[in-house]
Amino acid sequence: MKIIVDAMGGDNAPDEIVRGAFLAAEEYGVEIIMIGDENSIAETCDKHKLSAEEERISIIHTTEVVTMEDPALSVIRDKSGSSMSVGLRMLAEGKGDAFVSAGNTGALHAGSSLIVRRIKGIKRSAIAIILPFAKPLLLIDAGANIEVEPAHMVQFGIMGSIYMNKILNVEVPEVGLLSNGAESTKGTKKLIEAYKLMENEENINFVGNIEGKILPFGSCDVLVTDGFTGNILLKTVEGMGAYLMGQLKDIFYSNLITKVSALPLKNGLKKLKDDFDVSEYGGAPLLGLSRPVIKAHGNSDALAIKNAIRQAISYINTGIIVEIVKQTIKNETDEAVSAETNIVNEDKTTHDTQSKETSADEPM
Amino acid sequence: MKIIVDAMGGDNAPDEIVRGAFLAAEEYGVEIIMIGDENSIAETCDKHKLSAEEERISIIHTTEVVTMEDPALSVIRDKSGSSMSVGLRMLAEGKGDAFVSAGNTGALHAGSSLIVRRIKGIKRSAIAIILPFAKPLLLIDAGANIEVEPAHMVQFGIMGSIYMNKILNVEVPEVGLLSNGAESTKGTKKLIEAYKLMENEENINFVGNIEGKILPFGSCDVLVTDGFTGNILLKTVEGMGAYLMGQLKDIFYSNLITKVSALPLKNGLKKLKDDFDVSEYGGAPLLGLSRPVIKAHGNSDALAIKNAIRQAISYINTGIIVEIVKQTIKNETDEAVSAETNIVNEDKTTHDTQSKETSADEPM
Repeated sequence: MKIIVDAMGGDNAPDEIVRGAFLAAEEYGVEIIMIGDENSIAETCDKHKLSAEEERISIIHTTEVVTMEDPALSVIRDKSGSSMSVGLRMLAEGKGDAFVSAGNTGALHAGSSLIVRRIKGIKRSAIAIILPFAKPLLLIDAGANIEVEPAHMVQFGIMGSIYMNKILNVEVPEVGLLSNGAESTKGTKKLIEAYKLMENEENINFVGNIEGKILPFGSCDVLVTDGFTGNILLKTVEGMGAYLMGQLKDIFYSNLITKVSALPLKNGLKKLKDDFDVSEYGGAPLLGLSRPVIKAHGNSDALAIKNAIRQAISYINTGIIVEIVKQTIKNETDEAVSAETNIVNEDKTTHDTQSKETSADEPM
Repeated sequence: MKIIVDAMGGDNAPDEIVRGAFLAAEEYGVEIIMIGDENSIAETCDKHKLSAEEERISIIHTTEVVTMEDPALSVIRDKSGSSMSVGLRMLAEGKGDAFVSAGNTGALHAGSSLIVRRIKGIKRSAIAIILPFAKPLLLIDAGANIEVEPAHMVQFGIMGSIYMNKILNVEVPEVGLLSNGAESTKGTKKLIEAYKLMENEENINFVGNIEGKILPFGSCDVLVTDGFTGNILLKTVEGMGAYLMGQLKDIFYSNLITKVSALPLKNGLKKLKDDFDVSEYGGAPLLGLSRPVIKAHGNSDALAIKNAIRQAISYINTGIIVEIVKQTIKNETDEAVSAETNIVNEDKTTHDTQSKETSADEPM
């Protein structure tokens, strides 16, 4: 299995990306193709005493970088020679089995849709990220599509269900719609319309509107929303986790007695902190694409990159893309459209299935 | 000073509302007019041994109640005899100085706009709620307007600045716009437009886009957003607070050693828990109305109602409405519109100013 890694994307590139790639190659036994400036990558290898001769690692030299400030379409326009662009083209051409990037989310989403392309019948790809509550919750869309239509949200629900079933073995995932009230009349006009569509969609187990306050308490398995609201939610969950852990630290360090008292609680607290640490959950797939693209968090460290690569491996191994293709074909057939015309991604699908069969890597 | 209280609104009505009203009458020395079913109110008084003859408390009998499920406009249509409706009309007629309700938010917002009316020049009233971070943050709109225009958001910024200046003495409040990225190009089309308007608005100290992850860390004083996103944010902050405190409890109760260790930390943790307890911050004003309307949390207990009444008193005493009127007139004058035509709320303004002068109640 070959994982293509954007060595230049993210706040800590290329240092942490390169280190994470080496960790993954070692731990999971996969081949890594790093795309980026070969001098910078070599410097990082020297600095961290990583052997550039490691046979599972190869480098494709690029000089351009899509920055966080670049417009989304730069990836196919003035920065088509960038590490992100080259990586996506290699994925599209089958030169690797998945692409991992911690770079500009908008550019990765646009570039993936235009270069790697969506599964036929899927109207929008979306970022799906697992929120680390006691009962894990898949948030979809976590930031790819700022404005969406009701029909897109229904597809997010279907794709999210497949993901939770394949990755976390949830038999019949419960799908909720993020809104400002439980009643079907709550929310924007588009949400009210999405509610009706989801209620009547037999391929999802719709449980209705979900409010922020019950979110962390096992409210559902898949939470559907637009990418704007999803991104606000994701970052607020992160921010609140960091804030409350900081407040706790202040309480613990307030005097000698509290300092000593906090010691036996340390392990439990560390686990809680880790649960809300982005480096632990690593990356998020762009569901709906014809090949696996994993978005790693912008400030990923080496551990987060390693985990994002692990996620790419699981994504390939569990055959999620094949399942989304099947479900999409089924839906279109149900809508009395000939299924025959919809299997344009068959070659790509076959490729993914092969990856699954030949891989011996651990699932996530 | 007379505070009109909707005795029938909220999850715990009338019991907790009546108890809270008595607590406020006693603690703040204000007169309370309770609107609701007199039999239910009398029963509550009996049950909690509250003297119905308390001279500062009067009751206006109503039988109808706007429920959480009723459409917003029911307050002026089929339920115009409800406690909420009667209370709002009494406020509009000057029979009280403020109205407090824990009932249906949509109905309270619609009813307030139609019965009490907005300050002339203000396009939308909005719910403003203080998030209890180390540096308090005013969230506006927290749920009144599901869909808003860029110009509305600019007014939210102006009104929020006045509120934070008057209530929390912040000299020049920093105003941020909730978005999915710091750059001015991030967010929905409406947000990008709002960013431009706010950048050029001299009556606010605009600090740009604010992301969820930096929210709790003193990012700004006034956070502007639409009522849908604001409501999701507010409830997520509440949910995360409750969730993490629950997780902590599990850690503390895991064995005898952790139980004993947790004891010296108890005070600090209780304070942290209280900070995120809705009953502590009580209510939120509907900014932009010509008279004070305070929305108490739907599941308010007696303490939360008492605190919402305290907020109503502060709102009156600090002359926020007069200041918003002044600012709005100034803005319209700047736009070369004759100020003369804009002072239609002058009588109401005078009324509020009088309340301020005659009141001896403590500010919040």
